[in-house]
Amino acid sequence: MTTTDTEKFLGDLHELRQIGAYKTGVHRPTYSRQDMESRAWLMRKMTEIGLEASIDGIGNVYGRHKGEGPHLLAGSHIESQNYAGWLDGALGVVAALALARAGLPVDVCAYADEEGHFEGGFLGSRSLIGDLSEEEIDKARNRTDGTPLRQALADAGLTGKPRMQLEPGRHKGALELHIEQGTKLEQAGLRAGAVTGIVAIWQFRIVIDGQQDHAGGTTMAERRDAGLTAVRLLASIDREFPHVCGPRSTWTTGRIALEPGAPSIIPGRANILFQFRDLEITVLERMEATLVQLIQESNRNERCQARLEVMGKATPIMCDPVMLAALEAAAEQHTPGLWQRMPSGAGHDSQYIGRKMPVAMLFTPSIGGISHHWTENTKDEDLALCCQILASAAERFLCS
Amino acid sequence: MTTTDTEKFLGDLHELRQIGAYKTGVHRPTYSRQDMESRAWLMRKMTEIGLEASIDGIGNVYGRHKGEGPHLLAGSHIESQNYAGWLDGALGVVAALALARAGLPVDVCAYADEEGHFEGGFLGSRSLIGDLSEEEIDKARNRTDGTPLRQALADAGLTGKPRMQLEPGRHKGALELHIEQGTKLEQAGLRAGAVTGIVAIWQFRIVIDGQQDHAGGTTMAERRDAGLTAVRLLASIDREFPHVCGPRSTWTTGRIALEPGAPSIIPGRANILFQFRDLEITVLERMEATLVQLIQESNRNERCQARLEVMGKATPIMCDPVMLAALEAAAEQHTPGLWQRMPSGAGHDSQYIGRKMPVAMLFTPSIGGISHHWTENTKDEDLALCCQILASAAERFLCS
Repeated sequence: MTTTDTEKFLGDLHELRQIGAYKTGVHRPTYSRQDMESRAWLMRKMTEIGLEASIDGIGNVYGRHKGEGPHLLAGSHIESQNYAGWLDGALGVVAALALARAGLPVDVCAYADEEGHFEGGFLGSRSLIGDLSEEEIDKARNRTDGTPLRQALADAGLTGKPRMQLEPGRHKGALELHIEQGTKLEQAGLRAGAVTGIVAIWQFRIVIDGQQDHAGGTTMAERRDAGLTAVRLLASIDREFPHVCGPRSTWTTGRIALEPGAPSIIPGRANILFQFRDLEITVLERMEATLVQLIQESNRNERCQARLEVMGKATPIMCDPVMLAALEAAAEQHTPGLWQRMPSGAGHDSQYIGRKMPVAMLFTPSIGGISHHWTENTKDEDLALCCQILASAAERFLCS
Repeated sequence: MTTTDTEKFLGDLHELRQIGAYKTGVHRPTYSRQDMESRAWLMRKMTEIGLEASIDGIGNVYGRHKGEGPHLLAGSHIESQNYAGWLDGALGVVAALALARAGLPVDVCAYADEEGHFEGGFLGSRSLIGDLSEEEIDKARNRTDGTPLRQALADAGLTGKPRMQLEPGRHKGALELHIEQGTKLEQAGLRAGAVTGIVAIWQFRIVIDGQQDHAGGTTMAERRDAGLTAVRLLASIDREFPHVCGPRSTWTTGRIALEPGAPSIIPGRANILFQFRDLEITVLERMEATLVQLIQESNRNERCQARLEVMGKATPIMCDPVMLAALEAAAEQHTPGLWQRMPSGAGHDSQYIGRKMPVAMLFTPSIGGISHHWTENTKDEDLALCCQILASAAERFLCS
């Protein structure tokens, strides 16, 4: 039986946590100095373990196993959201290192920009499967500060490096360990989650145009207040979506930016970031149809016109049943009765890798369900347990 | 009869428009380089006309008439909103110059920061009437970039200058010419508005605390989404305020800032700027009571708590009946039948000056009612007409 070295695994995680440390979390936005430092750290670790380490033109760090196949691919992302948690992504990369260190025939990969600091998102995993064009790289900008992706790649020293593609037939499947980013496991008192599938995110921008004006001189009847139209539209989504959603659907308004955003000025424009997620394409389509209908109603009733821009419509993906069975057997072996099947509400690199090979994911509990915040955390014993479950599942699947 | 020099008056306005020019408007935020340049320009103009020019420790520019009284005070503000119109404020200052140039015993003043670039707002007029403490100056910050007021005053070279107070008994009354910032005059085909009173603005900040979390891992039932609570609260204000407002009340949500404002993160905090305005204190109190009640209801129903912070509660002020009569007579003399009485929906320096002496205001039409935007404009012939009405009214009132 393959056994992971818990001390080295946790040691790696805590070493990586020092890079870009922010309070108890980390701040490692994609291609930042801290992010590139973490990629260099990972390449050193890969080399120590005996993997052939490289970084490609989009920032993917790849550690190729030198021995015989069949091989597995394992990994996640190493950059973080801004001022966010130390485990989101990093856990899956360091666990993949632990599998390789334990002697499993595993290629380790840190997929670049899963967190979507740049428009498009999932740049690394999409590049690996041939789903990222040069034109998209030309156009994409940083969502926080507007830096062109090309500029960021140049500043990170990646210009001119070739972009790696997955080698057809090399991998029997891909594994990813990740924190749950929810409270399902914690609330049920469980220690591991075998992921059945990964939801798709459909992301939209809603732009509402009004008339910027003085908040005192303009009567209520005369106004074309883009902010008020935004509030009414979002309130209608809040009322209607529960009637069309699935049991695990989520929908989120992440930003409502009113222009110019001053106390005494009627907003001339509202810029809204809105997304929803589900595992079923029919549910996603129903939610989109409702959104379109609510915007049409708004445009009939309001003096400010709203328009909907599609920013991204991913495809949900189901995990491989054989790999899932291996994960379940390994979980039952190491923590009998204290695991469950569950969907992933968050997007992950595996949803793109899964277009090219069988994939499976394992979740560790998240304390308080907190994620995308520096207070994110998981108990060390749960981290160690899940790393061991992943290794045992890999072993089972390779022998299957 | 006192006659204003239209050519010089319009010439001054167009000269001032060059300072901080932005498209067809101006960008002269308080204490900025452009704003201080406009204050220096004004002092030169005052000196040319024979006034004794000075600037005080809060940035008020004062041109003291050297001759015998009884005197009038006239003026407005010279800074602009960000990237806003060329007449808002500037018109009243330049018209006051025109009155002094025409030989009227007028002290001219540009009151600092009517536009409220700094917390508190109306710094200049409030300082002149003794309503601005050193402690408030210590605490106030720029609402756009957070610069401390003390720092901004130092950068503008105003540190150490004494703050001027109005000289008791010196002025028989104060006049202010301003653009309407609405469409009432234009829609009625009128050329001047004699202001009956100035509404008070009650300005609030609503802060809603939720739990920042991952938008995929956290189910709808588990969420504490500060942005969603904000939308529901603002929708309830939209529903309830029409039942408690007066016929000319206005209410405005100028900003809804969700933190951190990212597409895949449930907002952990919402920061709302909300204000309402009316001429009657009883209506203002009724609107505030409704706001407090809606927030209490929200706090009973929602998982995110909202708290209300009062940023400012001004007192509405009625214009002086004798001065108003002088304005009406002058308007009827120069543009018979083409003027009306009207309240001011916007706040103005006169509401503070009015606590120390009789005040009156005259409005020019605003083309399309546009204000606080660089496209703000008024016809030259209306500007010239209103300047002349103001001078005639001043003469009538001085003789009354």
